[in-house]
Order: sequence, then C-alpha cells, then structure tokens
Amino acid sequence: MSVIPSLPDPALRARDRRQRVQAAETGMAVLKGLGQLGGRASLTHLAAHVTESPAKVHRYLVSLMEVGLVAQDAVSQQYYLALETLLLGLAAMRQADPIRLAEAALVRLREELEVTCFLAVMGNKGPTIVRFEEPGLPVTVNVRAGSVLPMLWSATGRVLLATLDEPAVRAQAQAELAAATAEQRAMLDAEAPIAALQRSVLAQGCAVVRDTNLRGISAVAAALYDYNGRPCAVLTALGATGGFDASPDGPVARAVCREAQAISALLGHDASR
Amino acid sequence: MSVIPSLPDPALRARDRRQRVQAAETGMAVLKGLGQLGGRASLTHLAAHVTESPAKVHRYLVSLMEVGLVAQDAVSQQYYLALETLLLGLAAMRQADPIRLAEAALVRLREELEVTCFLAVMGNKGPTIVRFEEPGLPVTVNVRAGSVLPMLWSATGRVLLATLDEPAVRAQAQAELAAATAEQRAMLDAEAPIAALQRSVLAQGCAVVRDTNLRGISAVAAALYDYNGRPCAVLTALGATGGFDASPDGPVARAVCREAQAISALLGHDASR
Repeated sequence: MSVIPSLPDPALRARDRRQRVQAAETGMAVLKGLGQLGGRASLTHLAAHVTESPAKVHRYLVSLMEVGLVAQDAVSQQYYLALETLLLGLAAMRQADPIRLAEAALVRLREELEVTCFLAVMGNKGPTIVRFEEPGLPVTVNVRAGSVLPMLWSATGRVLLATLDEPAVRAQAQAELAAATAEQRAMLDAEAPIAALQRSVLAQGCAVVRDTNLRGISAVAAALYDYNGRPCAVLTALGATGGFDASPDGPVARAVCREAQAISALLGHDASR
Repeated sequence: MSVIPSLPDPALRARDRRQRVQAAETGMAVLKGLGQLGGRASLTHLAAHVTESPAKVHRYLVSLMEVGLVAQDAVSQQYYLALETLLLGLAAMRQADPIRLAEAALVRLREELEVTCFLAVMGNKGPTIVRFEEPGLPVTVNVRAGSVLPMLWSATGRVLLATLDEPAVRAQAQAELAAATAEQRAMLDAEAPIAALQRSVLAQGCAVVRDTNLRGISAVAAALYDYNGRPCAVLTALGATGGFDASPDGPVARAVCREAQAISALLGHDASR
C-alpha cells in the first residue's frame, strides 16, 4: 500500500541506522531527565532540562507512556515515572551486589597499598568475611572466607556496631562485653563502652584497631551503604601493626574510605542525604 | 563534509520520524526485557525474549550502556541493569504515592457501592484519615480528613495491627487494651486479644467490624502494600450497620479487597512474593 520508496543505498541505510540509535538515546535521555528532575516534571521543564524542543520531547513521552515507563497526571498535566520504571529499578536493585562491586576495589587496595583486604557482611553468626585479596608478598596476614569476626574487637565489627542498628548486632556486642577479660575491658571506655565505640567510628568515618582482635595485627574498616542508606557490607584492610598505618587519617584509612564511598555510590547511595 | 543526500520529501520525513520513535520504543523494550528477565541476561537470551536479532539488540545495548542504564559483566559477559536504572527506580518510587493512586478507587467504591470510603495511613498519633469520598445520598456516614482512629476498635486500625510490625502500632494497641471497658474487652479474645485480631485479619485478607468503634457503624478495611511488601496505607469502606454488609466475603469486602490489590500492584507490590 505504501508509496514511500525503499532506501537501497548503503550510505543511506547506515545513516538510517545511526539515526535510529540516536533516537533510542534521546528516548533514554528523556527518561533519565525525568528522573533527574525528581521523577516528575512539566513538558516545558523537562524539554528545557534535556535541551530539546517540547514537540520532540512530547513524541518521546508518548512512546514512554505507551510502554508504561511514564504516566501523566490528569490534574497537573505533569509527567511522572510510572510503575514499569519502578519495576525496572527493583530489578536493578537486585543486581546492585556489594560483593561483585567491591571486587575491583579489593584488587586496587591490594595492589596500591600491598595490604590484605576483605569484604564482610553481617551473617547469622556475626560479621563474616565473604571475599578477600592478599598481596603477593613473601609474608602476608591471612584471612579466610567464612570467618566470623568479633563485634567489639575487630575494625569490621565496630563499623557494623556503629552503623547497623539491629538486635543481632546489639546482642553480640553485649555478649562480648560480658565475656571480656579485664585486659580487654581496659581498652574500652569505662562508662559507656559501646556508645563510645559507635561515636568514634561515626566521627572518623571508619574504624581503626591496633592489636585489639589479634596481637600484632592492625586494621582499618569502612561501611558500604546501599540505595536505602543501609550499611550492607564492610570493607577492611589489615596488616602487621609494625608495618601498617592504622591512623584514621593515614593513607590506608583514606584509601579504604574512598573505595567504600565509590562502591556505595555504585549501589545507589546518595551521600548528600 | 557528508555526501549523504538530504530527505526533503515530506513522506520520507514522516517515515523517518515514525522510525525514530519506533527505535526509541525498541530501546525501551530491550531495557524492559532485561528487567523482566530479573535484571540480568545474556545477549542471546535477551534477544530471544524481545524477539529481535542479537545484532540489533546489541546495538541498543551499546546505547543503553553509554548512558549508564545497563552494564556488562566482564566475567560472564551478561548484561545487567546498572546504577542509572536503579536511580530511575528510586525516583519512580518517590512518585508511587498511595494517596494519589487510591483516588480513582475511592470514587469507584463510592459510586458502585454508594458507601463512604477513605484512605488512612499510620500517622504519629495513630491510623489517620487522609482522603475520603462520600456518596451523594440524603443521609451518609461522615468521616473527616485528619481524624485519628483507634487501633483495636476500628477496621482500619486492625489492618495496621495485623500487617505493620512497628513499635508505635504495638504501643497504641497495648494502651487501648489497658484502657478498654469491660464491654469492649468482652468483644476480644480472652487469652490473646491482639494475636487473635491479627490472625483473623490475615486469614480474611481484610478487617471487618460491626459497632466496635462507633455504635451502629460497620466497616471493612484492607491494606495497600508498596514495592517493599510494606503496608503503606489502608482502604476502608463504612456504613450504618443496618444497611451495610460487613461480612468478610460480602460484596463490599470483595470490592475493597479488589481495589486494594489493584492499587498495591500500581505501587509495585508483587503479591506472588
């Protein structure tokens, strides 16, 4: 029925294909622009934001509405991100895996600082190492995946103690406090041992320990936060106390905090909130 | 520099525009397809799912990766929904407002059943009416936006009691139980008054009350759940006990449950989980 001629010329076809991909990118830009404007905007506002004409943006919005990614408010006429975008986000959240995203950071820490480093999560027995990297030095400090760490005496545990407000965390901390030796107890604040640990970690943005968990071992740890602002894992670097700078503003702590923040950003955490 | 001829023919231009919009829709279909496959898939699997050639899907994936909506796993070569999709989803979640989405349901309930109906949320003083619709009958049961309802004696409160495990809910229920008159106490289970209410609501999928909160008033209520599976609001219909069927499998309860489920689906709730 159509009288439109075909486009047999290869140059025209290549141009055609380029334009189609460009059109897909414009559609994505309109969708992302709506997200950047908080998920809701008028046509004028959105068109200005993506620097396209309102007529063109409207055409793409019609397509986005057809597939359920966007809807229009009948009263205000504003466009907003709709159910299908929400469902896409839920699927993306399932893919935002701190363990996978931390892999590159562990390798960088190992290579740049030549330290052993690991990722731990709160398991049902306590802070649990799930992934680690060791430098290729003749003598290194070893850790093992599956190891459970103490809440009060490890840097990893202290980060969870300060950031994860859960009954299991509090219970483990209380049990360790009750079982502490006089020597261990002397390392903590006399009046409010747990609250003092929490305050110190939150003030420093990381936990540092020297010889508290294992004699001769120091460690620095920082939390990874997800899109909900919830701490979902802990990144820790450790080494022999003599050759490891465990000061909260030393190069190891700075690198661990920087990597933890970068992974949190990839998990959708907004540090400004 | 280009030797490609322009397309001045209006028919060609219209075709061009149509194809561009179609290209945007294909891009969206690829993105949504990846979401439908759980947020991660191989090129072959994704192409089969959206019934396009792998070469074509790959071109769109390259665009989607360029704007950060999709990423590729270096090890498995699978594509997955990335940070920008997660951020879009967060913006969509902020737009998924139960109050706005319930408006149409309230109007439908009012018109179909000629009952007063309202939406309530858990406020800082207890279950609070935030929006209502009244039928245009000469005599109707009135409610007021801002009214706070009891947890134990209203259908709305009982839905929150059964579905929202929060200290404020438990505290209000305990306080009402302690303050109950002998007559009120006789309406509850003697041994486990709160647990029996919760079990009954969960078994029925809704709460029904007759004359417990106000003499002569019956009500039916059901929970709205969000994408997290969290009850975020309660939909309630009420009327004079004599002319209102408050049985848990009557037409009012069925309509309230159906509308509550439909709004929950729009909020991203997956009832199958």
